[in-house]
Amino acid sequence: MTKTLKGIAASDGIAVAPAYLLVEPDLSFTKATVSDVDSELARYKEAISVSTAEVEKIRDSAKKSLGEDEAQVFEAHLMILNDPEFTGAIENEIKEQKVNSEAALDETAQKFITIFEGMTDNEYMQQRAADVRDVSKRIMAHLLGKELPNPASIDHEVVVVAHDLTPSDTAQLNKKYVKGFVTDIGGRTAHSAIMARSLELPAVVGTDSITKDVQNGETVAVNGLNGDVIVDPTDSQIADYKQKSADFLKQKAEWEKLKNEPSVTADGKKFTIAANIGTPNDMQGVNDNGAEAVGLYRTEFLYMDSKDFPTEDEQFEAYKEVIEGMHGKQVIIRTMDIGGDKHLDYWDLPDEMNPFLGVRAIRLSLQNEEIFRTQLRALLRASAYGKLGIMFPMIGTLGELRKAKAILAEEQEKLAAKGVKMSSDLEVGMMIEVPAAAVLADQLAKEVDFFSIGTNDLIQYTMAADRGNDNVSYLYQPANPSVLRLIKHTIDAAHENGIWCGMCGEAAGDSTMFPILLSMGLDEYSMSATSILRIRSLMKKLNTNDIKELANKACYVSETAEENEQLVSDLMKKVDR
Amino acid sequence: MTKTLKGIAASDGIAVAPAYLLVEPDLSFTKATVSDVDSELARYKEAISVSTAEVEKIRDSAKKSLGEDEAQVFEAHLMILNDPEFTGAIENEIKEQKVNSEAALDETAQKFITIFEGMTDNEYMQQRAADVRDVSKRIMAHLLGKELPNPASIDHEVVVVAHDLTPSDTAQLNKKYVKGFVTDIGGRTAHSAIMARSLELPAVVGTDSITKDVQNGETVAVNGLNGDVIVDPTDSQIADYKQKSADFLKQKAEWEKLKNEPSVTADGKKFTIAANIGTPNDMQGVNDNGAEAVGLYRTEFLYMDSKDFPTEDEQFEAYKEVIEGMHGKQVIIRTMDIGGDKHLDYWDLPDEMNPFLGVRAIRLSLQNEEIFRTQLRALLRASAYGKLGIMFPMIGTLGELRKAKAILAEEQEKLAAKGVKMSSDLEVGMMIEVPAAAVLADQLAKEVDFFSIGTNDLIQYTMAADRGNDNVSYLYQPANPSVLRLIKHTIDAAHENGIWCGMCGEAAGDSTMFPILLSMGLDEYSMSATSILRIRSLMKKLNTNDIKELANKACYVSETAEENEQLVSDLMKKVDR
Repeated sequence: MTKTLKGIAASDGIAVAPAYLLVEPDLSFTKATVSDVDSELARYKEAISVSTAEVEKIRDSAKKSLGEDEAQVFEAHLMILNDPEFTGAIENEIKEQKVNSEAALDETAQKFITIFEGMTDNEYMQQRAADVRDVSKRIMAHLLGKELPNPASIDHEVVVVAHDLTPSDTAQLNKKYVKGFVTDIGGRTAHSAIMARSLELPAVVGTDSITKDVQNGETVAVNGLNGDVIVDPTDSQIADYKQKSADFLKQKAEWEKLKNEPSVTADGKKFTIAANIGTPNDMQGVNDNGAEAVGLYRTEFLYMDSKDFPTEDEQFEAYKEVIEGMHGKQVIIRTMDIGGDKHLDYWDLPDEMNPFLGVRAIRLSLQNEEIFRTQLRALLRASAYGKLGIMFPMIGTLGELRKAKAILAEEQEKLAAKGVKMSSDLEVGMMIEVPAAAVLADQLAKEVDFFSIGTNDLIQYTMAADRGNDNVSYLYQPANPSVLRLIKHTIDAAHENGIWCGMCGEAAGDSTMFPILLSMGLDEYSMSATSILRIRSLMKKLNTNDIKELANKACYVSETAEENEQLVSDLMKKVDR
Repeated sequence: MTKTLKGIAASDGIAVAPAYLLVEPDLSFTKATVSDVDSELARYKEAISVSTAEVEKIRDSAKKSLGEDEAQVFEAHLMILNDPEFTGAIENEIKEQKVNSEAALDETAQKFITIFEGMTDNEYMQQRAADVRDVSKRIMAHLLGKELPNPASIDHEVVVVAHDLTPSDTAQLNKKYVKGFVTDIGGRTAHSAIMARSLELPAVVGTDSITKDVQNGETVAVNGLNGDVIVDPTDSQIADYKQKSADFLKQKAEWEKLKNEPSVTADGKKFTIAANIGTPNDMQGVNDNGAEAVGLYRTEFLYMDSKDFPTEDEQFEAYKEVIEGMHGKQVIIRTMDIGGDKHLDYWDLPDEMNPFLGVRAIRLSLQNEEIFRTQLRALLRASAYGKLGIMFPMIGTLGELRKAKAILAEEQEKLAAKGVKMSSDLEVGMMIEVPAAAVLADQLAKEVDFFSIGTNDLIQYTMAADRGNDNVSYLYQPANPSVLRLIKHTIDAAHENGIWCGMCGEAAGDSTMFPILLSMGLDEYSMSATSILRIRSLMKKLNTNDIKELANKACYVSETAEENEQLVSDLMKKVDR
């Protein structure tokens, strides 16, 4: 039956395709004794044999679609399915204890996992424990007559439906066939949303219930522009979505033409539109979308994708690749923002009651100076290869900024003494994301070359509303006058002190926020690469003379975020006329 | 050996006394089989008999020092120690399973606890489960030759040393003998610190290691004025502390004389010094210390000390008691601030990743309107008995404030229609503790009768530093210029709109913050009752003409909290000369 769900529009575009549910079934079972051991053994062997056939099929398709490396894990699974030590132990358990296959499998698998996991310093054995867990899950599913999702074997166009999407889920997806994402939870800044934008896939997140509302294979229509999801759409709805999709693609093609154009307003004022990236792999999208700079390179992914702290040389290579890839355009690299919601397997940090208000970003760097100094050396060495800006995240006080700068200066001197090549026009800046920093922007501006406003955090702290908590998402208001006043104060303070001010939060690429920010005179707008052409097109339509008063109205006349959304909506009606 | 530890000065005063360690010993044991069952049985019976004697002793001393009611729980413990169903089951286990007493005790106790706890709707049985747990702990300690702390039987002067102190720990302490607290963890706003101030006991918290650095009975010298703790002090150190203590008591006696004096500056300007309270029981301290108002009544304790939501009548009685107790002086009652770090056993709220940035205070009230309306009705009815102000916590947007006020107005109308007596000069105000509210104070001031600045939260959000997290406590800076600018903006906005502004966070009673706040023209200072006379004495020394420039200097010239601390320290040197 047709049903429409409302979620959060997380990535532009329209898709219509069968749903692929990336949801694990319930694999709980009841332990039982069996009287007919022989027929139980036959049932067990059948499960092993269909599991083996299934894994072989997944391996073959993974090899083709994802490559040899990604398929390797399935070879390991097959080895376990063929290992008499494992399968024989289960058989014995059935024979000797006269228990059902589910109980025998669970008991045996637990034993193997415990032994492997006990060898804590042996990474190979840790991986084997994970393999046993995966294989047992598959056998159990067959015993219980349930179906496991096999994302690696998707071989037709689908819309992936999940409670949430983790990085490891997405690694197994064949991007060729995935036409869109829909999830139960998350907001515009969730991993799944960021991933969708970087893959240029339409996505709707935070629908609450999509995994319960759709069956595997049922058609889903996803509108990533307004957050609508239709389960089992009618023919006319499908036609409508196809039209919308065509319109969207046409508009995209229009935007495409702006790729090599400068970012200018209708009255010819020039600003910079830059890209946010997470890894050197994102450089393709940066160049495809005509970014004029990298406004934020989030280095924490370098740490998160690694099995141990990345060495100075590993970091140097990654930074150099991005800097060189921009051919002289500026690259702002932010020192690591670990802590908060981002953790490293190899760095055991204390649990915190409120991690977003805890030891994260520059706080962690200043409390672990050697790790910080390694990153700074890698950055300084990479600076020789283009135009670099180094940016410190989560600065809250002048004391922190001065300490970070002093450490940077020390490393700079030491490298210079060794004759290491470095840039002579390195810029040093800071994020404005702690409310205290926004309030003191006039003082901080005297000590840096640039500001970059991090709206994702600035909003969550200013409104005291966790940006990942659905129950307070109504308070996460980018257009709230309080947030806008802090942004305006920051931009004004930068300009009064002769430095430039950028923004690298989600708000920079938000069509509602953009006219207000332009009215405030923000210099650089850094966003997901896929938003760049849309914003460049919007900029081209706006005349700075017409929106002169917008900033003051939004900060001092409006009393709520809704009023500001209305202000911009009214403005755009005039502009589009 | 003498050792000095540095902690956080949490409650004024000086104490020197033997340490009483309120720390549970490690009660883990190894299960073993026994060959000589008879001697094991004898060992077990001996443990029961010494446990019984011990509990009888504690009961007797608790009766004397704490009263019949508090001693009741020990009668219940004795019943269990004499219950053959319980002790016999353990004996049988030893005999039949040939296991050691520890294993038999543990197994049997677990069984009883599981059964009792299974009866979830029977409060009596829940209490029995807790009793079995306590009794088993005691028997186990005797079996293992370890000593349990028995706070109820303290019969000589001690300094209580603990990792942290919970409300239930402190309930068992005989206040007559406890001369001070020292803890490993916590800050000035921790429960243990607030408790110490309300009991007027010297306390030092956050020493990190006191429970490891001191033995039971070793002498400890506690300086609650500067945070020093000396373990095993030398004779000359003891003499020094005794002198300091005498000086402190002399100063307190001086302050005492101000009890019935008005709060005025040296140049005769009048301000209000008010008290923060948690329950009607705190009214004694309020009157003993000459408070001119109750500036904050934290109603959440009414909910936390209850087994279910307090009824409208129960709330009405509590509010009325406080309002009447102030004999016409104003009482500001804050609607419940549940959520964040405060939870109710009977209200199952979803776990949050960052509870301080989650659904708390007014957010929870607006999402659970019936509970909110019950509280508002109780407040409106109580308003007839004196001068009441109702205050909403954690307001972040005008939308929330308007919604809360509309609900209040509805309840007011409904009660009026029924002819219920209410005050005609009720004031309605809000806390300024979300940074967004401080930034928009000029808009919010048009809609309320007063502001009360909640510095504890305002600081933690502005600095993005959890006030309970030791690892970021260096960022919890009341005197940071960013915090002071937000406070000044709030006070100025209030005055420009003709309303009064108070403060009910810890900063109001802080000697360093006070001169700055006075310079800003803050109208009401609400604090722990025990701080009132100290601040009144300080106010008397300050001339508002001499500190006119202090506020602007602290907000716009100073760049760090340290500079502001120095500013005030320099000022006080001049004043005290």
